[in-house]
Parts: sequence; structure tokens; C-alpha cells
Amino acid sequence: MTLREELEMGFLEDLIGYRIRLVQIAAYKDFETVTKGFGQAPRYFGLLSLIEANPGLPQGKLAEAIHLVRSSLVPIIDKLEIEGIVERRSSKGDRRLKAVWLTAKGKKVLARLRPHVAAHEQRLTARMSKEDKAALLRLLQQVDVNLRNGKSLVEAA
Amino acid sequence: MTLREELEMGFLEDLIGYRIRLVQIAAYKDFETVTKGFGQAPRYFGLLSLIEANPGLPQGKLAEAIHLVRSSLVPIIDKLEIEGIVERRSSKGDRRLKAVWLTAKGKKVLARLRPHVAAHEQRLTARMSKEDKAALLRLLQQVDVNLRNGKSLVEAA
Repeated sequence: MTLREELEMGFLEDLIGYRIRLVQIAAYKDFETVTKGFGQAPRYFGLLSLIEANPGLPQGKLAEAIHLVRSSLVPIIDKLEIEGIVERRSSKGDRRLKAVWLTAKGKKVLARLRPHVAAHEQRLTARMSKEDKAALLRLLQQVDVNLRNGKSLVEAA
Repeated sequence: MTLREELEMGFLEDLIGYRIRLVQIAAYKDFETVTKGFGQAPRYFGLLSLIEANPGLPQGKLAEAIHLVRSSLVPIIDKLEIEGIVERRSSKGDRRLKAVWLTAKGKKVLARLRPHVAAHEQRLTARMSKEDKAALLRLLQQVDVNLRNGKSLVEAA
């Protein structure tokens, strides 16, 4: 049952921005429900996965990757460090630069979360062909690039 | 400049759920920046547009349309009523049922907001063909339908 059958969408009819927001709200609710009991890790699953795939990355680089300013990332890393799933160490190249790693516990939590994330992803993309999924991913990446190119706006927020 | 050129995406590489979340964070920052000074209206632009396109809709129907449970919508309508942009009246068919309308002020605020929303949408979809935009909209709608079909999860949240 689609919205379209029930409500007039008015100005929203063709707005991609609105659809992204609506889908994100519903997707996040689904994700939250299936990942209860994992502490802070589900909320920061993307960030933790980036840390895992890029061990020892400086905080500034991490922040940029997830559309945050560095000062917003620092308290998040603090929280994750208190939970014992990440740790900060000085960067080898530059001792003043703090870099971030997953702890052994963090790696374990992430491994336990992954099947839940995969199941969530399958619900999101149910009844989509392989081509549809690839197209959706490509188009979302284009939106991401568009927003990064309008960067002054993001930094001003 | 894409993330791909800089960071390993690891498990996130093909996750549509992650891309939607990332894009929504960046899109919302852009939207917030360009709609400062409009009070609560930008935050609830989708909801207000639905009320405009479907005047006199009961609160329950509105809640459902935006993936909320009714009890979460009520305080939002309260806030918007205090700002004088919506009003509740009894439904004609059933006097116990509270229905929602935009006020004259609400209609004016929404009309002033719309060009900003349109400009935001253009930034989101820059360098996309008409076909790409239609495909992205269709695929996001499919995700929306998928999540509505897993409804018990959304209600449980």
C-alpha cells in the first residue's frame, strides 16, 4: 500500500529530498528495533565500520567522511571510548594527531551486529532487482557528491 | 570528490541503508542552513505540505503517512498550533475525531518556504538527468513500501 493511494502529495509529489527523509525515518526505526541491546554501537555503525576498514585514521578525516565537523565527532568518539569499543592513540606520522582504532571488544560487537544490519538491508531492498539496487546506490552516491560540492553550506551548519 | 577515492568503505560499500542515512544527514544540514528564521515550519515542511494538500485529515492518518505513531504526532501538532500555523477542529463526519488544517498564516509561511525547498532539491539532484531523477524517486518509493510492509517493526519502535 503506497501513500499515493491514500493521500494527495501536493508539492511533495516529486521531491527526492522528502522521500529520502521519509525513508530514513522509517529505516532508522526498523534498524533501532532490531539492534536493541547493543549499546551505542548500532547508532554509530557506519562510523565504526569506517574505523574498522581504515584503522588509525585521524579524527578529522573520519568526521569529513560522515558529514560532521570535527568538533561534533570528538564527543562521539569519547562515548565510544568509554564503552570500550574504540581507542585513540597518537598517529605514527604526527604525534600531535590523534588517530582512532577499534578495540578487540569493538571488533567483536561489530561482528555480532553485522548480520542484523544485513537483514535490515534485505528488508529495505526487498523485491528489487540487482540492477535496481545498483542504480539506487549510484544515484544516492551522486546526491552525496552533490551535497559535498556545496560544502560551504555543510560547514556553516 | 567521492568518499571512495579516500577511504575504504569495508562492509558499508554496497549498503543502501548506510547511503540513505549519510545523504539524509548532509541534506538536512543543507536544508536547515537555507531555511533559518522560519521557526518550526522547515522541520515539519513535509507534514505541513501534507496538511495543505489534504485539509481536514485526522491526526491518525497524518501520523501514518510520515511513519509516526499517533502519540508522537500530537505534541508536534501542539507546537505548530502554538506557532499559529495549523489548527485542530472536530471532523464533520465524527465530532470525536480531531482533524488538522493550515491557518492563513500557515499557508503564507509554506508559500514563502517553497522556493527554498525547490532550490535545496535542485542542489540535491544537480547533474542528474530527468530519467535518473525519476528512477531515484521510484526506487525510494519502493524502499518506503518495503518498510511499510514490515509494519509491525515500525509500530513497535
